[in-house]
Amino acid sequence: MSAISFEVRGQDPTTRARLGTLTTPHGTVATPALCPVATQASVKSLTPDEVRDLGAELILANAYHLYLRPGADLVAEHGGLHRFMSWDGPIMTDSGGWQVFSLGFGLEHGVGKIASMFPDEDENRRPVRGQRPRMTRVDADGVTFTSHIDGSTHRFTPEISIGVQEKLGADLILAFDECTSPLHDAKYTAEALERTHRWARRCLDARTRPDQALIGIVQGGPFEELRRESAAEIAALPFDGYAVGGSLGRSKEEMRHVLDWSMSALPEDRFRHLLGIGEPEDIFDGVERGIDTFDCVTPTRLARHGTLYTPDGLIAIRNATFKEDFTPLDPGCGCYTCTTFTRAYLRHLFVAGELLAYTLATIHNLAFILGLMRRIREAIPAGALSDVRAEFAAHWRRIPALPVGEGEGGW
Amino acid sequence: MSAISFEVRGQDPTTRARLGTLTTPHGTVATPALCPVATQASVKSLTPDEVRDLGAELILANAYHLYLRPGADLVAEHGGLHRFMSWDGPIMTDSGGWQVFSLGFGLEHGVGKIASMFPDEDENRRPVRGQRPRMTRVDADGVTFTSHIDGSTHRFTPEISIGVQEKLGADLILAFDECTSPLHDAKYTAEALERTHRWARRCLDARTRPDQALIGIVQGGPFEELRRESAAEIAALPFDGYAVGGSLGRSKEEMRHVLDWSMSALPEDRFRHLLGIGEPEDIFDGVERGIDTFDCVTPTRLARHGTLYTPDGLIAIRNATFKEDFTPLDPGCGCYTCTTFTRAYLRHLFVAGELLAYTLATIHNLAFILGLMRRIREAIPAGALSDVRAEFAAHWRRIPALPVGEGEGGW
Repeated sequence: MSAISFEVRGQDPTTRARLGTLTTPHGTVATPALCPVATQASVKSLTPDEVRDLGAELILANAYHLYLRPGADLVAEHGGLHRFMSWDGPIMTDSGGWQVFSLGFGLEHGVGKIASMFPDEDENRRPVRGQRPRMTRVDADGVTFTSHIDGSTHRFTPEISIGVQEKLGADLILAFDECTSPLHDAKYTAEALERTHRWARRCLDARTRPDQALIGIVQGGPFEELRRESAAEIAALPFDGYAVGGSLGRSKEEMRHVLDWSMSALPEDRFRHLLGIGEPEDIFDGVERGIDTFDCVTPTRLARHGTLYTPDGLIAIRNATFKEDFTPLDPGCGCYTCTTFTRAYLRHLFVAGELLAYTLATIHNLAFILGLMRRIREAIPAGALSDVRAEFAAHWRRIPALPVGEGEGGW
Repeated sequence: MSAISFEVRGQDPTTRARLGTLTTPHGTVATPALCPVATQASVKSLTPDEVRDLGAELILANAYHLYLRPGADLVAEHGGLHRFMSWDGPIMTDSGGWQVFSLGFGLEHGVGKIASMFPDEDENRRPVRGQRPRMTRVDADGVTFTSHIDGSTHRFTPEISIGVQEKLGADLILAFDECTSPLHDAKYTAEALERTHRWARRCLDARTRPDQALIGIVQGGPFEELRRESAAEIAALPFDGYAVGGSLGRSKEEMRHVLDWSMSALPEDRFRHLLGIGEPEDIFDGVERGIDTFDCVTPTRLARHGTLYTPDGLIAIRNATFKEDFTPLDPGCGCYTCTTFTRAYLRHLFVAGELLAYTLATIHNLAFILGLMRRIREAIPAGALSDVRAEFAAHWRRIPALPVGEGEGGW
């Protein structure tokens, strides 16, 4: 008996996209869905009520961060993550694999989910300039790493990660894996993949809570053979659902291939998550390849940088262009920010360093991306997904260089 | 015809405390009331809806700050402050007198409303360490000062301050005055007071908007003769209401005397505001002396420092004591923070540097102080004000050294 069930309720006629319902111990999630990220048990700058009112049904928290602070035991004594953060809906926790990667090789080489695009995926890490990167050491049994908070030494193994995630008590927990970088060669990636597959079996053996779903993760870097091998291997294990993880290549084009290979063997009747991806175009790519849920810090982090979604693309609200712009941020958007304030006021809040800026920007960016997910869910059973994508792409202009790094530090 | 009216609806039998209704072009205010401070057109970390839901009816914004950023003309073109910040209730703006003081003598000597207590009253100023204080030069006609944002030179005169406040368009605007320090001697204070009285008449002459109430300010430092003289002089001028301003002495005891002298000649049928004071004990002192409204950054600033009101006094939520405290912050409080989260979670948010910490703490501190105002309003007509004060004082334990300065800077 699985803690979750997944029902496919509709299918796009021309792609693998499907409409679904994920049922968890804390409620259902209409898919395709995007989970806002609550790294440290808080979707940054929003109350859980605001997150709920925006229509989010599933959020993702971080085993690595919560293990370090406030500690998994404390969260368990508190009655688990749902009570701790006062979110009674479904929660997923990641296993710590990605965080260990991003503090190790990722930090050292400045690579992220898609190399050269997101050098700083771990939204709580302060950028380290002129310092040696923190050390991460992988062995056959697990990973030893230093805390990004105080430099203390810690160790995660599959068993420890599952133990931490059982204490946190999310509805969906992730297998502990080794994330390789797109800069790693095929030989190292194959070795790491073998570890990931062994760890996947150890995670399945270690789990004890029947009210949590354990999600297996497909790895294999940018290599077709390894991705296909991993998809087959992980699909053959009795996971409750599947996720595609790791770095997805060096370009959007490569990401699409990696996704195709990773999804090749994953069963159609199971829930499938894409880790750490959430830009609008990527969401379309993922949905068309049969991904059901996404998590990504991008909408909320961009918001805190003053980079806001509009149907025409991203705008930097601090820009002087908006100083006397007395129109709503996005006239077609029904969120609190757009129905209540003007671009000029939002710009003022950012320029003046007012905390309300972060809240209002986050509300809008989440409303935008969750609204896009809603349009996708409506389009799939109507056979209109390609129309929605074409209509979106006709307006959307991507700003080549996102202002990642600006204002980084505290948040 | 005044833009506002004030009706006394009840009177405490043993003190000058009164229950009242202030009617403004943007609605009524039940008094005694505390106005949350929206220095830069935002009550820090809250949406205007949250401020409204907490029961605040009047807020105070800052002519000095808004003149510098985003500029009074921009706010005027936007349709005024109410539309700019989306607050459709009553607004008061201060004149800039206090800010000019706090950037000049106040900064130089580290004094505030009550000397040695609030060295940093201007909540948007970054602390200047190891730097010369910025210069302020007072002459007979006005004040020349340097911007705290970019060091540029500006000038405020009574006419300029009224012009700025007319552009901002608050319901209640304040006369432009010279705030002296409690460290100034009687001779300088008397000279400054003469300027303040001349400037008061110039403000009355300069005003042009019939939909704004102009409030006269009593000054005179800690000197009985000057305070009484100022009260009589300002009361004799055709202001729509009155305020007690300036530094109020070197101790709470002296503050009470200064208040008595300042209130001595102010007419009973007019609205009376106490500038920059808002700690619980001070509110009782003010209410008992006939003050109708208060503004103070203390509740919101303390909140952002993690210093939270409880019926037993202030607590520093970052303290390790609260690490495993799974109880509400204040079990008797009905605010969102207290009914939704635990002390352990609030501590986690502060320790982890999560933005939500500031919002939740601000919600509670305002709920606490606005709840106290409500109890005061209920007590006055029932003749129970002294009971309410005694009950409050029986529990309240003031922490001698408030953590002012900690975390100061951005906010």
